[in-house]
Order: sequence, then structure tokens, then C-alpha cells
Amino acid sequence: MEVTVLRLGHRVGRDKRLSTHVCLTARAFGAGKVIMDARDPRVEESVKEVVAAWGGGFTVEYAESWKSVIKNFVGVKVHLTMYGLPLDDVAAEIRDAKKPVLAIVGGPKVPSEVYHMVDYNVAVGSQPHSEVAALSLLLDRLNQGEELGLDFKGSLTIIPQACGKKVAGTYRSKSK
Amino acid sequence: MEVTVLRLGHRVGRDKRLSTHVCLTARAFGAGKVIMDARDPRVEESVKEVVAAWGGGFTVEYAESWKSVIKNFVGVKVHLTMYGLPLDDVAAEIRDAKKPVLAIVGGPKVPSEVYHMVDYNVAVGSQPHSEVAALSLLLDRLNQGEELGLDFKGSLTIIPQACGKKVAGTYRSKSK
Repeated sequence: MEVTVLRLGHRVGRDKRLSTHVCLTARAFGAGKVIMDARDPRVEESVKEVVAAWGGGFTVEYAESWKSVIKNFVGVKVHLTMYGLPLDDVAAEIRDAKKPVLAIVGGPKVPSEVYHMVDYNVAVGSQPHSEVAALSLLLDRLNQGEELGLDFKGSLTIIPQACGKKVAGTYRSKSK
Repeated sequence: MEVTVLRLGHRVGRDKRLSTHVCLTARAFGAGKVIMDARDPRVEESVKEVVAAWGGGFTVEYAESWKSVIKNFVGVKVHLTMYGLPLDDVAAEIRDAKKPVLAIVGGPKVPSEVYHMVDYNVAVGSQPHSEVAALSLLLDRLNQGEELGLDFKGSLTIIPQACGKKVAGTYRSKSK
């Protein structure tokens, strides 16, 4: 399933690590790209390093107008919010539409108009927690668990072990 | 299912927000408590505020010796690591043991001895992403999706909406 993530409310510096987690989770769980509403080279660099070593075509982009991103997106627009409809009530419907999905995640201060610009406001449990957790469950439901078996064909590949670490391949970071 | 989360490698200050996300995700997805390996009043305060408003008996504790926590835990000890066995290969076995679970999450620098102290090293996808994402999927599999329908009986309760925000109850924060 083709998923793009729109990350709203990123504050350069302060949100660097959380947004990096959003991006890496998006990538690992099968999304194709994250669009951020603020340019943060440190997030972009961290993610590029992971993609270079671990594979896939995932990208991080920046959009000057998040409103245009939502308005112009062709597909199903899903806003993750604890106030929305239960994920498991709507996941099958979103999946069955067989269209690209725009998954919108933000912090607590998402502008209220976002609620009106989307096809679905979706709650991953109606409790305060984390946009990283919400995104991971959404992607899991959209991909029906298959995201955990994706092959990224990276320079590095992990060979799962009951104990210890086993990695196939070699990779030399350009940035070090 | 009774789950305790052990959060390793917390650095006071630097990891405040990520560890808060770990704690809130643990709570929202049905864990009973998080034990941290460093005392961070800011994390504890944030979580207490959420519990006071949104309910449940979730707690954050601090342990001087994380090794003792692992050694002395009675139940199934699960370490989340991208190098471990695929989650969906072992989740049913862990569930079927019908014992309390200790879920251990850390950053990239978890001491190697942890791998040898646990019953399972589990990978939530063999890709680098986020301890928050890994924990959320583990809890989802252990609770078989039922965590998203938990009733926390809080002062505040969200009434799910297709659009907008609806909250039942009242709560006045003590800290403001």
C-alpha cells in the first residue's frame, strides 16, 4: 500500500529526535516518504544515513504549505488524532479503497481545520500517547502485518537471531 | 495481559520526550508500569498528569539496578531489538505462556549482556526505527488489538468523532 506521511508541527531543534523516529518508523513500516512542514537538515541527514545503509527508496521532503499538500493529495487522507474514530472500525474501509494514503501526524497543536480537510480522523486508542505509536499501528493495519517482513535490499541486512547480532553485508558511512 | 516495561539507557534531559512517549504508549496500550534506569522527575510529572486526567493505575518507577529488575522478574522476559526473532514468529508463544511479561526497550547502546538475560530477543521488523514503535507493536500483538478499546475510567473520556473533538468529564490540572 502506497503511503505518504505528512508530519505537522515540527519545531526545528526541539523535535529533531521525535521527528526522526516518525520518519524511521514510516520507512520501516512501509511508507514511501515523509513530508515535513519545517526544514530540518539534521532529521534529513539521519534518515538519509539509514536509507543508504539499510536500503529502500524512502525520502524526506519539505513542503512550504502543508495545506497544499493535503488539498492536492490524490487518494485517501487520514489524520491521526486521539479524538477520531477507532482505527479498527475504519482500517478495512481505508484499505479496501485501494488508493494511495496520506497519513497526517502532528503534535497536540494541530490546527482545527485539518479535521475538516481529511477523509478520516482516526484514533489509535482514545488516549494521549505518541504520534510514533499511532503511526506504527496505522501502518500495521493498512499493511496487515506484512510491513514487518519487508525486504529493503540494503547494503546491510539483519539475519534474525535468538540471541546476539548478525548482520550481512558491508557499509561505510560517508559522513564519518 | 500483565506487562511491565523496562526502559534502559534513559539520559536525563536529552531523552525526556522520547521516554515520555515510551511511557504514554505503554500506558495507552495496556502496560501497568514502566521502570526507568534513571530518575527523571520531568518524565514522571508528565505521566502523572496524564494518569490523573485520563485514568488507570499506570505508574513510572525508578530502579537503581536494571540487572536486578531483569534477574528478579517472574514471568517472560522480552527484549526488543532489531536483531532478534520476528515478532509474529514468537508473539503467540509469549501470549500462550499466560505469564506476566517484562518488555525491555532501550536505545542503540543496550549492553550486550541483556541479550543473554532474557527469554526472547524480539525484532519488530529487522530495520532501525523507534523503541516507541517497537513497543506499540509488541503490546498490540500481546493484547491482540484489544488494547485499543481499553476503558481507563478517567476524569476525562473521549467520545470518538468523525470530525472534531468531544470530551466527557472535567479535570483541573493540579500543576497549573
